[in-house]
Amino acid sequence: MTITEMAERILAGDRRALARAITLVESGRADHRAQATELLETLRPCGRQGLRIGLSGTPGVGKSTFIESFGMMLTALGLRVAVLAVDPSSARSGGSILGDKTRMERLSRDKNAFIRPSPSQSHLGGVARRTREAVALCEASGFDVILIETVGVGQSETVVAEISDLFNLLMAPAGGDELQGVKRGIMEIADMILVNKADGELKPVATRTQADYAGALRLLRKRPQDPEGFPKAMSVSALEENGLSTAWEEMQTLTNWRREQGHFDRRRAEQARYWFEEEVRQTLLAQLTTPGPVKDRMQALGGQVATGQTTPSAAAQEILKTLGMESG
Amino acid sequence: MTITEMAERILAGDRRALARAITLVESGRADHRAQATELLETLRPCGRQGLRIGLSGTPGVGKSTFIESFGMMLTALGLRVAVLAVDPSSARSGGSILGDKTRMERLSRDKNAFIRPSPSQSHLGGVARRTREAVALCEASGFDVILIETVGVGQSETVVAEISDLFNLLMAPAGGDELQGVKRGIMEIADMILVNKADGELKPVATRTQADYAGALRLLRKRPQDPEGFPKAMSVSALEENGLSTAWEEMQTLTNWRREQGHFDRRRAEQARYWFEEEVRQTLLAQLTTPGPVKDRMQALGGQVATGQTTPSAAAQEILKTLGMESG
Repeated sequence: MTITEMAERILAGDRRALARAITLVESGRADHRAQATELLETLRPCGRQGLRIGLSGTPGVGKSTFIESFGMMLTALGLRVAVLAVDPSSARSGGSILGDKTRMERLSRDKNAFIRPSPSQSHLGGVARRTREAVALCEASGFDVILIETVGVGQSETVVAEISDLFNLLMAPAGGDELQGVKRGIMEIADMILVNKADGELKPVATRTQADYAGALRLLRKRPQDPEGFPKAMSVSALEENGLSTAWEEMQTLTNWRREQGHFDRRRAEQARYWFEEEVRQTLLAQLTTPGPVKDRMQALGGQVATGQTTPSAAAQEILKTLGMESG
Repeated sequence: MTITEMAERILAGDRRALARAITLVESGRADHRAQATELLETLRPCGRQGLRIGLSGTPGVGKSTFIESFGMMLTALGLRVAVLAVDPSSARSGGSILGDKTRMERLSRDKNAFIRPSPSQSHLGGVARRTREAVALCEASGFDVILIETVGVGQSETVVAEISDLFNLLMAPAGGDELQGVKRGIMEIADMILVNKADGELKPVATRTQADYAGALRLLRKRPQDPEGFPKAMSVSALEENGLSTAWEEMQTLTNWRREQGHFDRRRAEQARYWFEEEVRQTLLAQLTTPGPVKDRMQALGGQVATGQTTPSAAAQEILKTLGMESG
């Protein structure tokens, strides 16, 4: 299949072509990278946009159940839904949080849904690019909503937030002490906090937790990209499929307001610029850690510096000369 | 003065030569940099070591008074004391926290003390290198103790901790709420917490604050580089010169233990390696932000990426090609 054919099939909504294209952007091979860049450049002018919804939640919070119930509700509304994952652990273990689709059995059989497991990748920078590019492919393929999920370890929440139009936190019902444990930086990038498991015995705890988060959100500084009442905390039950359509309505309210006010396009423009700069930075630094003569020289000189045989600056200048640079 | 002459004079303890050498390592000019590297390489084999004591404290905590009293006590013991400053604000404003020596009038007149104001620098990476190299010059010049102070904004505490053998936090007497406001990461890199102003009306508050910090330090995970009882919280009065010699004894106890256990040398080796790697990284990234054609192209392409005229990856590849690299 040529790149032109692949592009045409993606635009026609061919799922197999989409899956192959995502495999292409995931590849580390130089020729695949060149093809991926060509494919994305071919698709760029189509101008199709989906709503990119980031979703973070720790294990046990019911993320899979939520995505399945929420996704099924969206496809029932006639929307096409893609699910992608950013898995920080895959960078180390090669494992995958969406390794099998059995986690979302109903949704994976839905012809209006497309679920893509997280690939194994060498570093989070690579995961970010792959996810960004997979999002672009899903949009070109006509998906209306792209759910991007992460377990929220380390920097992965920031990566997902920098790819998404909306960033939601899925939380478990919890006592006041646990609430304090939420990283402050994460609260500040959340657009909505959804307290899951508002069902059965946990319902009163969930309601209280939601009120606690709502209070905590009110204490944060107002952001220009939020209308009155946002960021918002809500309680939902993915299991009983309660509160999901209300959550979707709130997401649409927020999105429509941001579109009208220009925040939506501005955020996308800033994100694109950020990823461009980040890719340049990461590639420059990757020269030092990619197996090969530069990495070997770094390690040898590091040893000499540690034992006092040379100074840090002299050693740095030697490496920079190897890379064709003068030290600043 | 040739580099060889400068090196000889520094080794002989000539203060004027030391001051000129520090000016040399602070310079951004390429020829000065080459001379600085040569000078440091000439001095490296002398093997003189001082004790590098990092000191961080917010404005108003009495940092100048403490350094003056503590420094006078050390020179009275026959020790030679150098004071350097890492000023994160100078990177932006060109200002200086040690701009005039009037802050430490007595110490600046002491012939066994050497006070060097923080220079204006373009970025914290440059400040770090200049400080590291100034420390090496002071050691070659025979100083026994090098005090490195910072106001502790942003990353400057980490910079100072990565240059020091001991890292001390100077704190004001405070209530329980303020205590919680101490950044957890800072507590974890502190070797000693000194609660200043344990005099007059504040004395009981200082004692209570010291006990609070001691309790907080006990909750932290034990670090291999600490003997029993460290990190330690103490209260001192820089104004009344109380507790300073006890603090100095504790610092010596800690240092001697670390020397015996090998932690002292290991930390210096790790720090040297870190600064080598950091200098390479910072110089690589500085290509993108140094005024010139690459920075201009970054901005132009950033604009095109933001308006959707090209993709982040395609734009990144163009910059990397300009820099003689292939995108990964």
